[in-house]
Amino acid sequence: MQDMTDFGKSILATQPFSQFIGAELHQLSPGSAELHLPITDTLKQQHGFAHGGVVSYLADNALTFAGGAGMGVPVVTSEMKINYIRPVIGERLIARAKVLSLGKTQAVVRCDVFVKDGEKEKLCAAAQGTITALPDKKPDI
Amino acid sequence: MQDMTDFGKSILATQPFSQFIGAELHQLSPGSAELHLPITDTLKQQHGFAHGGVVSYLADNALTFAGGAGMGVPVVTSEMKINYIRPVIGERLIARAKVLSLGKTQAVVRCDVFVKDGEKEKLCAAAQGTITALPDKKPDI
Amino acid sequence: MQDMTDFGKSILATQPFSQFIGAELHQLSPGSAELHLPITDTLKQQHGFAHGGVVSYLADNALTFAGGAGMGVPVVTSEMKINYIRPVIGERLIARAKVLSLGKTQAVVRCDVFVKDGEKEKLCAAAQGTITALPDKKPDI
Amino acid sequence: MQDMTDFGKSILATQPFSQFIGAELHQLSPGSAELHLPITDTLKQQHGFAHGGVVSYLADNALTFAGGAGMGVPVVTSEMKINYIRPVIGERLIARAKVLSLGKTQAVVRCDVFVKDGEKEKLCAAAQGTITALPDKKPDI
Repeated sequence: MQDMTDFGKSILATQPFSQFIGAELHQLSPGSAELHLPITDTLKQQHGFAHGGVVSYLADNALTFAGGAGMGVPVVTSEMKINYIRPVIGERLIARAKVLSLGKTQAVVRCDVFVKDGEKEKLCAAAQGTITALPDKKPDI
Repeated sequence: MQDMTDFGKSILATQPFSQFIGAELHQLSPGSAELHLPITDTLKQQHGFAHGGVVSYLADNALTFAGGAGMGVPVVTSEMKINYIRPVIGERLIARAKVLSLGKTQAVVRCDVFVKDGEKEKLCAAAQGTITALPDKKPDI
Repeated sequence: MQDMTDFGKSILATQPFSQFIGAELHQLSPGSAELHLPITDTLKQQHGFAHGGVVSYLADNALTFAGGAGMGVPVVTSEMKINYIRPVIGERLIARAKVLSLGKTQAVVRCDVFVKDGEKEKLCAAAQGTITALPDKKPDI
Repeated sequence: MQDMTDFGKSILATQPFSQFIGAELHQLSPGSAELHLPITDTLKQQHGFAHGGVVSYLADNALTFAGGAGMGVPVVTSEMKINYIRPVIGERLIARAKVLSLGKTQAVVRCDVFVKDGEKEKLCAAAQGTITALPDKKPDI
């Protein structure tokens, strides 16, 4: 799956926001994606933890990559749900997404987000969402 | 509610990530919050729209501000769900959050996110989540 | 909108489960739906409240009716999220759903569920979900 | 874990709604629960599939049993999200819930719902939610 991971990296490189905050794609296959994000001080909130919005960005993007790789077409995240499980204290966020079901126009995907603190990984958020092929995202009203 | 809005601005100023991406608090009361985010090129994804993770950051933060102002204690977002309704094309994101219910340890809050393009505002995302007083967020396992 | 409400009642009458638990459609328009459910002892859980699954059934169905009436085609609920706000004690559940956005293949809809206890209505749950035209619901795997 | 499963069955027997629709607890441990529901005609909607509200009831209840068994106290489901993945055609619904994180006052739990059609099991829904110890569920407003 190195070819697909390389292709995914080239897509990530075209996302200004992902570059801006420093996301790294470590693995991509038709059924899964792994995104990393080194935690810098600029990504934190007032209590010194990584901001929840940073965690949800990473989960959202991992869901989209996994679903898009599964469907093989340009996609967007239609919707997602995230439970924040523990304060994010550590050096690196790791989001692992896995496709649950795959159709022609949408995929249902789950994502676990871990924080790596030294050698330990701890689950810090769990997400689930729907990835949709691009033309489905233009509402009439 | 100017005092509460000013207090909220002082909190937002202590969130490095919110400063980093440029969020602005425009209104805060015990039952509501309004956060803005000017859309710059760095906040976009590969199709030229604001990245979904940016939209979810703003919704998440607006939910937290509204719930925290309602509960009057330090809080975190426990969980949230967001539906992305249309591609975000415009100059400014505006997230308006409103508390639906308020308890001693948690609040349920909704948030509508609009994109302002010229004079028009269009709904681009809808979120709903749970805000919890801080001590509830430390799981044993 | 009496014609549409009557049409909706005829659809509800063809749902065995809705008949089984006693749901009543009180209003249907292209942008909204109101479903009622008299609370009987059989709909309760062990603490004497209406079961959460009953509340989620009603929210789900109200979302589907509102979205389907808006789209004008046979639909299913693709996904939904529900926050349970207070224990359901009273005589009647009332679910009011409202379409937030409407496209050719999907709608985003919100629903508030109230419990009526004597003359008072109290918000007991808040839901949000995606309604999709039927052919989109057949995944390949 | 036979003792805990037996204890769970005794709880399920005190839920009138669960008895009404015919749910069966097949397994319960501090980290997991498995609930079954034989699909009868009364549980269907107008297209002949099991009603989405039936699926969400089963997911909700499985989440609550798994979370409650994990926390060891009376609990309620605070919130949940469900993605419906395919039309439910078959003889039996099987909901398997698994605790992701466990705290003093809340647990985050996932649930997969399968439909058994002959010898095959197919994933038909995926849910995720928060289970909360009972006293947390009384909002002030």
